[in-house]
Amino acid sequence: MHLVTFTEDGKTRLGVLDRARGEVIDLARAGPGLPTDMLAFIARGESALAEARAAMTSGAGRLPLAKVHLVAPIPRPGRNIFCVGKNYRDHVQELRKSAATIAARDAIPEVPIFFTKATSSVIGPNRPIPAGLDPTHSADYEGELAVVIGPGGRAITRQDAMRHVYGYTIINDVTSRVLQGRHQQWFLGKSLDGFCPMGPAIATADEAPNVGALRVLTRVNGEQRQDALVSSLIFDIPTLIETLSRTLTLEPGDIIATGTPAGVGLGFQPPKYLKPGDLVAITIEPIGTLENPVD
Amino acid sequence: MHLVTFTEDGKTRLGVLDRARGEVIDLARAGPGLPTDMLAFIARGESALAEARAAMTSGAGRLPLAKVHLVAPIPRPGRNIFCVGKNYRDHVQELRKSAATIAARDAIPEVPIFFTKATSSVIGPNRPIPAGLDPTHSADYEGELAVVIGPGGRAITRQDAMRHVYGYTIINDVTSRVLQGRHQQWFLGKSLDGFCPMGPAIATADEAPNVGALRVLTRVNGEQRQDALVSSLIFDIPTLIETLSRTLTLEPGDIIATGTPAGVGLGFQPPKYLKPGDLVAITIEPIGTLENPVD
Repeated sequence: MHLVTFTEDGKTRLGVLDRARGEVIDLARAGPGLPTDMLAFIARGESALAEARAAMTSGAGRLPLAKVHLVAPIPRPGRNIFCVGKNYRDHVQELRKSAATIAARDAIPEVPIFFTKATSSVIGPNRPIPAGLDPTHSADYEGELAVVIGPGGRAITRQDAMRHVYGYTIINDVTSRVLQGRHQQWFLGKSLDGFCPMGPAIATADEAPNVGALRVLTRVNGEQRQDALVSSLIFDIPTLIETLSRTLTLEPGDIIATGTPAGVGLGFQPPKYLKPGDLVAITIEPIGTLENPVD
Repeated sequence: MHLVTFTEDGKTRLGVLDRARGEVIDLARAGPGLPTDMLAFIARGESALAEARAAMTSGAGRLPLAKVHLVAPIPRPGRNIFCVGKNYRDHVQELRKSAATIAARDAIPEVPIFFTKATSSVIGPNRPIPAGLDPTHSADYEGELAVVIGPGGRAITRQDAMRHVYGYTIINDVTSRVLQGRHQQWFLGKSLDGFCPMGPAIATADEAPNVGALRVLTRVNGEQRQDALVSSLIFDIPTLIETLSRTLTLEPGDIIATGTPAGVGLGFQPPKYLKPGDLVAITIEPIGTLENPVD
């Protein structure tokens, strides 16, 4: 199932995306007992999913996709987005070759590197990325598979980890390369307003029983820049969940962006940073394509 | 005015602390129209403060401090706590001398270094710091003045910055030194459950018209470890607000921990990390003392 948050006539609602028919099932009409925001829906767990599935078959509340406006599936996360740095081997190599001093230690990390993006950086599909907000003109794209946590907990083992995965979405971990390097810790250069496009949907975990087979494809103005299988992550999803939850309680609706593969703008010589008029499209099937123009 | 969040008979309420009389004015009784959580109270701005001031003089809803249980003034922040690294010169020097590789670049930073602590790390006054949760046994204290943001905004100038300060509280930026170094980015080693004691109150900005004169005093088991004036910050509060808000929208209730002075456990040879039975007390008048035992 593909869960979306959308607006229609200025009102924000939850929906199920029927990709085959190009329709959104409005859960406020088809499943009126359901929560009206995604965090509450996720917290409700399997019972809300079952009700949404029933709504899909009832035929009620169907709207043409063209008539609604998709926003980020979780427009306002309950806390900062967890992100992982240097989690694809070939991306670590391209950083090493680049001139930027993103981090002092250039080797393949021995443990996952976690940082966060501010909640205020989230924008939805098709919303412009405000690259002009970066005074250093070094905004760069990073296509990433993001995990949405269902049941929370601490001390989740690798073996149990996938039972805590609610679903998947796409995040563009847009980064000001100069601010990222200049401020040493990456938070500021990763947290500019609008620098976290998310969407278009949350594909529930059952849509991707073999997450390693998912492929992250990033195109800028139609030119392919990133292409990698999730199976090539240095630290896989169970390891990320185990490492985070060893000392920190994960919560329903938490979002973990798993890292970006090679092919970011910084990896080119000279770097290909984002400029007004560019169009970034990140495709990860079966989630969909997250497309954002650059302002 | 000193704003607190407290529990009485299992119910969480907002209050005003009357330090002179050792009493808490229960705002649910004395100002029944007021919001019941601190984030909503802060968002209400000056009108809520005026009503709370009136409640203080009415005599209604007064409870002996000994009868209530103070929790963190903002028990669940709306997003991660913003923190600043290496913001006192003498602390940068003690890090340089220590064996730990907290960061590769040892010089005085040229711009503020921002990272975040997870919302789930917040605990209140007198709650035990679960040092045993750190598998590397390197939990360290960091006494810090924290700024609470009132009116939010982007592109706040140095000149305007203090008008966005709602008040001040104390944060103990407890850190696993080994996890901090091992994971490169500091988030994970700073975000263990219970590693962000906060409180005991928010002193509204009018209580500290000259914030530079505030003194951060940390004692462990009665032994003085940290003693510094806020005026010795490398990047002062207006600079922190200006730098963050240049590219990121600050929001009411955001918390910025401004950095820790010299005297952390890591600065000693051998390091004096926290161990079960220790008692950490951070005093910043006119806010009060944040005291937490170590588990």
